[in-house]
Amino acid sequence: MTSAVPDTGLLAPGWAGSPAASATSDTAYLQALLDAEAALTRAQASLGLAPADAATAVTEAADAGRYDLRSLGERARAGGNPVIPLVADLTKAVGQEHGPYVHRGATSQDIMDTATMLVAARALNLILADLARSERALARLAAEHRETAMPGRTLTQHAVPTTFGLKAAGWRSLLLDARDRVAAVRDALPAQLGGAAGTLAAFGAYGASDPTALPEAYAGELGLQAPQLPWHTLRTPVADLAGCLAMTAGALGKTAVDVLTLSRTEIAEVTEGSGGASSAMPHKANPVRSTLIAAAARRAPQLAAALYASMAAEDERPAGAWHAEWEPLRELLRLVGGAARDAAELTEGLRVHPDVMREHLGLTHGLIVSERLSAELTPVLGRARAKELLTRLAAEGRPLARAPELKDLDLDPAHYTGSAPTLTDRALERR
Amino acid sequence: MTSAVPDTGLLAPGWAGSPAASATSDTAYLQALLDAEAALTRAQASLGLAPADAATAVTEAADAGRYDLRSLGERARAGGNPVIPLVADLTKAVGQEHGPYVHRGATSQDIMDTATMLVAARALNLILADLARSERALARLAAEHRETAMPGRTLTQHAVPTTFGLKAAGWRSLLLDARDRVAAVRDALPAQLGGAAGTLAAFGAYGASDPTALPEAYAGELGLQAPQLPWHTLRTPVADLAGCLAMTAGALGKTAVDVLTLSRTEIAEVTEGSGGASSAMPHKANPVRSTLIAAAARRAPQLAAALYASMAAEDERPAGAWHAEWEPLRELLRLVGGAARDAAELTEGLRVHPDVMREHLGLTHGLIVSERLSAELTPVLGRARAKELLTRLAAEGRPLARAPELKDLDLDPAHYTGSAPTLTDRALERR
Amino acid sequence: MTSAVPDTGLLAPGWAGSPAASATSDTAYLQALLDAEAALTRAQASLGLAPADAATAVTEAADAGRYDLRSLGERARAGGNPVIPLVADLTKAVGQEHGPYVHRGATSQDIMDTATMLVAARALNLILADLARSERALARLAAEHRETAMPGRTLTQHAVPTTFGLKAAGWRSLLLDARDRVAAVRDALPAQLGGAAGTLAAFGAYGASDPTALPEAYAGELGLQAPQLPWHTLRTPVADLAGCLAMTAGALGKTAVDVLTLSRTEIAEVTEGSGGASSAMPHKANPVRSTLIAAAARRAPQLAAALYASMAAEDERPAGAWHAEWEPLRELLRLVGGAARDAAELTEGLRVHPDVMREHLGLTHGLIVSERLSAELTPVLGRARAKELLTRLAAEGRPLARAPELKDLDLDPAHYTGSAPTLTDRALERR
Amino acid sequence: MTSAVPDTGLLAPGWAGSPAASATSDTAYLQALLDAEAALTRAQASLGLAPADAATAVTEAADAGRYDLRSLGERARAGGNPVIPLVADLTKAVGQEHGPYVHRGATSQDIMDTATMLVAARALNLILADLARSERALARLAAEHRETAMPGRTLTQHAVPTTFGLKAAGWRSLLLDARDRVAAVRDALPAQLGGAAGTLAAFGAYGASDPTALPEAYAGELGLQAPQLPWHTLRTPVADLAGCLAMTAGALGKTAVDVLTLSRTEIAEVTEGSGGASSAMPHKANPVRSTLIAAAARRAPQLAAALYASMAAEDERPAGAWHAEWEPLRELLRLVGGAARDAAELTEGLRVHPDVMREHLGLTHGLIVSERLSAELTPVLGRARAKELLTRLAAEGRPLARAPELKDLDLDPAHYTGSAPTLTDRALERR
Repeated sequence: MTSAVPDTGLLAPGWAGSPAASATSDTAYLQALLDAEAALTRAQASLGLAPADAATAVTEAADAGRYDLRSLGERARAGGNPVIPLVADLTKAVGQEHGPYVHRGATSQDIMDTATMLVAARALNLILADLARSERALARLAAEHRETAMPGRTLTQHAVPTTFGLKAAGWRSLLLDARDRVAAVRDALPAQLGGAAGTLAAFGAYGASDPTALPEAYAGELGLQAPQLPWHTLRTPVADLAGCLAMTAGALGKTAVDVLTLSRTEIAEVTEGSGGASSAMPHKANPVRSTLIAAAARRAPQLAAALYASMAAEDERPAGAWHAEWEPLRELLRLVGGAARDAAELTEGLRVHPDVMREHLGLTHGLIVSERLSAELTPVLGRARAKELLTRLAAEGRPLARAPELKDLDLDPAHYTGSAPTLTDRALERR
Repeated sequence: MTSAVPDTGLLAPGWAGSPAASATSDTAYLQALLDAEAALTRAQASLGLAPADAATAVTEAADAGRYDLRSLGERARAGGNPVIPLVADLTKAVGQEHGPYVHRGATSQDIMDTATMLVAARALNLILADLARSERALARLAAEHRETAMPGRTLTQHAVPTTFGLKAAGWRSLLLDARDRVAAVRDALPAQLGGAAGTLAAFGAYGASDPTALPEAYAGELGLQAPQLPWHTLRTPVADLAGCLAMTAGALGKTAVDVLTLSRTEIAEVTEGSGGASSAMPHKANPVRSTLIAAAARRAPQLAAALYASMAAEDERPAGAWHAEWEPLRELLRLVGGAARDAAELTEGLRVHPDVMREHLGLTHGLIVSERLSAELTPVLGRARAKELLTRLAAEGRPLARAPELKDLDLDPAHYTGSAPTLTDRALERR
Repeated sequence: MTSAVPDTGLLAPGWAGSPAASATSDTAYLQALLDAEAALTRAQASLGLAPADAATAVTEAADAGRYDLRSLGERARAGGNPVIPLVADLTKAVGQEHGPYVHRGATSQDIMDTATMLVAARALNLILADLARSERALARLAAEHRETAMPGRTLTQHAVPTTFGLKAAGWRSLLLDARDRVAAVRDALPAQLGGAAGTLAAFGAYGASDPTALPEAYAGELGLQAPQLPWHTLRTPVADLAGCLAMTAGALGKTAVDVLTLSRTEIAEVTEGSGGASSAMPHKANPVRSTLIAAAARRAPQLAAALYASMAAEDERPAGAWHAEWEPLRELLRLVGGAARDAAELTEGLRVHPDVMREHLGLTHGLIVSERLSAELTPVLGRARAKELLTRLAAEGRPLARAPELKDLDLDPAHYTGSAPTLTDRALERR
Repeated sequence: MTSAVPDTGLLAPGWAGSPAASATSDTAYLQALLDAEAALTRAQASLGLAPADAATAVTEAADAGRYDLRSLGERARAGGNPVIPLVADLTKAVGQEHGPYVHRGATSQDIMDTATMLVAARALNLILADLARSERALARLAAEHRETAMPGRTLTQHAVPTTFGLKAAGWRSLLLDARDRVAAVRDALPAQLGGAAGTLAAFGAYGASDPTALPEAYAGELGLQAPQLPWHTLRTPVADLAGCLAMTAGALGKTAVDVLTLSRTEIAEVTEGSGGASSAMPHKANPVRSTLIAAAARRAPQLAAALYASMAAEDERPAGAWHAEWEPLRELLRLVGGAARDAAELTEGLRVHPDVMREHLGLTHGLIVSERLSAELTPVLGRARAKELLTRLAAEGRPLARAPELKDLDLDPAHYTGSAPTLTDRALERR
């Protein structure tokens, strides 16, 4: 009833139109596959295993715009991966003379895995840039609200006061943790080169005196790390990507669920900069950025699980575990890329309402400082009587300020923020 | 470095180019969203709440080809879903007179959920058709190999003989279980209609005397079931889809992992009809269909988990749980749709090698019938001596046929297939 | 540093001490394993394949109290499952005469799978009983609050009014969906009997003229369904359990997240009957039941995913996929069992505060009925001017009641609950 | 029907009776909770905030043997965590004088999270020790089989030769990757201390001049790292545990699935040292260690997903996300701990059969070196004719050695292992 038409992100407002979406599109993957093929021929040329002309020819032909994505996708069915038809097309494109130097000695997985690492490196860089934007915005919010008191909430209930500065500093701290993990993984992404079963044997058959020099030259052409061993079924790089991306999604998700809570109509202590509108209800300003980040944080763990599960990959190339990685990894990169973009906009635009926070500190009629009162009354009344008194006053529901027993105590919640400002300062020292 | 280009399935040889891919494409979703909008106006017209002309105009404008998918995807960011920009475009398309009857009284989720059910219904039908192909092919194989003996294998080791017919009948039985679950879910897919908070209030405000009649009329227009209650945050239909699709993926996966095992170079008891070729290794015929099905079976459970997790959806519309459903559900439909197609090709083309099976029955030199020998020797020698004898013979590693102690016993593994043929017959009676 | 000591649920306040915990304990599994063994010998006796005395002896010895759980657990390592050492112990327990009739012709998986189904049946019955308690409590709440108006909330913001009755009716409807699925699965749970490779061959070797009669007799002894085929690697029953339990967890989770939201200090429209106390903060009454249910709903989907993934089980018994089912399935039964208990207590004790709901309806100064105003003003002012007016009034932030343009309109949010009462009535008709 | 009895690992042959099981038992957790309480009082004493006598008294009372696990587990229900009843019991145990210094200023989560880190540190150490055993065994196997040729297999089919040394070196390399990640996480595990909402306020109320000094003293008492910020809802430590454990499970799983494949009756290139027996089938030696490791590798990703999902934790303590961490984290530690034990036994006992490997190299009648032939024939015959020749010979199915066209070429598969030995050497240099 409808003919096949490519996806554009209609179901994905979280990443549609984002740089991360472009960096992980089918076109981006195709270009990365071609980049890997070109690097392979150049690396062989640099070691005297292929003519320089062939390297030039393959490099020139390695332009995604010259190939038919849809046709490649459909022809990929026969052999189960897109490299097979691409090699056929690329070989044809460089002509009969240079054709023999296309993909020579490699296996499909060498190219596919390398391309995946190239795409991942580009997407991680985008993510790091957006995390840096959020980090700066949160540093500003934390400093600005160093002493802005607000209710600390546990299990949905007011507990004791905290500050919005500490909350923002905590969000930032979590993003810095994510940044550190993402940066470490990005710096370690390896090229893949092993040939049919990871022994580099074909390169020897084609004349290399030391085939183990080739992966290094190849990685150098691509700006990736040289692998110690071919990793066709030693999937550390994929597991590391899964881990750092799931962790980043969770870190962004923490900010999002807090903003969602604090944005509730009844709470309204913060407001997203540009709330999403509703056509029929002009008063509604939905926290859309947070909503989309929260949605990404719900999905990332399962995608990471699929990748971890693929580590148990039998033989020199598994029948399914490898193929099951491709889409979840791309989806993770996109989702986290989109969420990082949304988080940058969210944190940069977040409006904070200290007056509302202040007002809410009074909602429990002073009981939000009962912990303090308990600490101060105990030496005077003894532990049991202190507790009894506070329990009775809590049950009465009257403002504590009117209780004669407490008249000499400091009941101002804004004076009971503990070390929140100091902790905020300390957290902001981290870069 | 690369501009945004839509995905074509380059990373998805499992579903690229399949009918399920078309049925779940962005275009298919867009058309379903438009179908839902048109049905809404028609249903209102049928109850006298909108002019017939408006219903005609909206129905005519509800043609996916008239809208810009990419623009819709990107404008969806602002409000977090694609219905908002689509309603704007559709309203414009029908002109000033009929515009007020577009989306009247509805909320974005009414349209989005309904469209999802339409897409799901279409994809499930494709899946059912492909399951039926597999079922017929397996019935034929089971009947044909009713008595074809082969090694039964447990924990990777030969245990006792079984038959290929029983194996094929088992695969079929599992597919029939999947079919029954998919068909039941398809038959129950409901339309969604509740308005902003699921009370149908706006329809009353626009003049409906009994707004609860509207969902029924609307569902009727769409060929979906009328819901008892609006289910914006009562996600049974999504959970049911998750369950039947994960189950189907697992059922197809069972056949795939068996074919992968039986296809191994050392086993080679079956061969895929059209093996995937390798350019450098002309002898290789990879079991590609099974590989891709197995990959789908690895991914489906996590996608289903994401959907089940979204059931805990707060309020009248959740901030994230709903948004987190869209892509995983589409992906599940596609993956299972693609796997069902691959399974149909796999089962229809599978080549079975009874002679190899027969040969393998001898690999353990008769020990594959040790269970039988144990049963028959025990009354004669007593349990302990029978076990001792067999353990000694097993340790010696000689063919049992040469052991004088066993000379009167039937050692032919093909005579020890138990009730396999009878069970096969019985399973084939199920339709 | 610490010696091995069994778990008691210290980390599991959600199910510790519950009937579901008892029904799924190691002791309960052990008893079920013994019940399966005893039924097997009795079934053989009933078909003349074993002496009645042996059946009696095995049945008498099938008492969990007579076996050493810890020893069984540790001896299970050698062969990878607990049935192997249990058969040894049971054989010894019945003595030399009846020993040969213990486990005769069966394989470990026959007993393990059957025991799992027995445990599941018992746990599902407990779950159904607790769902029934919740269902009754929610029916009462729905009826009582049929017209209790409250804010409908979408994406965390007030949208339009709804009623608490409709909310409770929705919770109940979801639980009834869960009940229907659980009951259907319970009624279909099959016994398992196939022998070493699922051909029933050994039963023939031991003299059965029609071994296919045995599974039926065996299932009858146990109160389980007779399977059409041995299902050692056709895991429909496990997948069905995964699905109905994940669905139930999600259904209970929906109620929980709503109660958590409505219990927030700033919202406080409902209160759990017996809130969890905090020692240092006497005012805190934490919504503990909802918290624990929500925690279960977060975990269940991943456990179900592990079970679905095990469907792709190779051969006649897989090396890992089967073993990976045992703990997740037990954990799912426990978690959902505990959550169902908590939900029964939660719904039976829930306190509802209509006055607070009513007060909150005014928080947006009338804008909560802007949808209605839009509908009523449009015919008078035209769509554009109506929208313009409402947007202007919303931006001004003044109570709409004071706007002269609206003076003749019904601005009472409690009058704009649409069909909520009617929908509630309809939902309550379902039993 | 059965009374509640604690679990002993009956369903968990993968970890029952292991050191990791002891280190993560309820008793171990209870002791860790008590260790955390004692450290807190000692840290306060060291800063002059509590009498030294109180510290001594609490430390003495902090003995798990003195408390009733089952009672604690059941009383944990009321408040939703076991710290609340434990504090009550511990306070009672130290007597009226020292009671006020128990848990002073802390919140339940401070103790629970710290105890979890203590348990994790102990379990990770056990895991590291077992990984070291496997690493040594694999280094030995890799060196010994540096040149043992065997078929390299891709997508279940023979591809080109490899060596068993390279395979073992690859397994080892993956375990070293896991080791590096586990060790880094272990070294960074932080204590938790923040008080009710993470501001350390109560410690100030109880007299600390600089409450931020307390977490450092506390961490020092416990041998954990001092946290920069309280991390009640900044769950990096939990996410890091999830990641390194899922990764380790996958790494162990890779070895397991390879051993399972190579152990198949038809392949039999390796044998587990002590195969699991079958009572009825004396010839069976099941690869039980690999089976149980593979089962753990199937479950770990979902458990990790549950932990990553809990990162999106709202407020200063979430209502459910925190509670949902406890059991999955413990289960991950146990599963990976058990799998590491099994892997040590597996690798230390693995028997390798070079003669069988050698024999299998001939299964494709020489086609396993077709890649080499193609490389060598192409310069002579041209690419097209070389391919045509090999394809024809492959189709004929005769041994290549008899083809006159190939008579001068080296057809010995053992001579086509490429750089496998060199790569093995290089990998073994890593420590």
